[in-house]
Amino acid sequence: MTEKSSLPKVVNIAQKYTLFHEQWQPRIVGEANGNYVKLTRLEGEFIWHRHANEDEMFLVIKGRLQIRLHEGDLWVEEGEFVIIPRGVEHLPMAEEEVQVMMFEPKSTVNTGEIQNERTVTDQWI
Amino acid sequence: MTEKSSLPKVVNIAQKYTLFHEQWQPRIVGEANGNYVKLTRLEGEFIWHRHANEDEMFLVIKGRLQIRLHEGDLWVEEGEFVIIPRGVEHLPMAEEEVQVMMFEPKSTVNTGEIQNERTVTDQWI
Repeated sequence: MTEKSSLPKVVNIAQKYTLFHEQWQPRIVGEANGNYVKLTRLEGEFIWHRHANEDEMFLVIKGRLQIRLHEGDLWVEEGEFVIIPRGVEHLPMAEEEVQVMMFEPKSTVNTGEIQNERTVTDQWI
Repeated sequence: MTEKSSLPKVVNIAQKYTLFHEQWQPRIVGEANGNYVKLTRLEGEFIWHRHANEDEMFLVIKGRLQIRLHEGDLWVEEGEFVIIPRGVEHLPMAEEEVQVMMFEPKSTVNTGEIQNERTVTDQWI
């Protein structure tokens, strides 16, 4: 890539993943139309939560993501995505570490309407 | 996946690509927060255009995408993405067929402010 400072940045997803290793702490890698593109590493079990006003898209880059819903469980494999509609309570989990790309409004908080020790403020990388 | 009708759909990107082979005719595969997730096949040269009010995200699933800008050229490889900011005139092209996932507001027209024979209305698959 012949990059000049004025050109939009091309983002290499695998390279970005070398820059952080913390789990459950999404990193911001892009912004478009009021949405952030985020990368995260998930392993183990998160908390049940919902986002009142935001649909949340999970695209699996590597590994296998499980999302528990009250109606049943979803498994999202590498190269697959799912969109959890606003208001739907969900519990992301992963038996082994999974790399997930997320698209969601800038307003989205990782723990939804809950504020606890797992709530984080996402950082740009 | 133990799917019930009430569960959000898990979308397999490779499987969706088996459902269409037309180039330059994006298909809609998801909707979140007023944005569509689209899949498209590109080969050859498109037309110079811009989107006055929409940033446009191109994520390369397979192959290599070139985007010409007046300031220079970008190459986006498999596993990479770029966001072309609103108002920036650009010309997507590909020497060989490339599979691209796009994330953009529902209002986005493929040819931007131009209406011609390459303008299409995107279909859900």
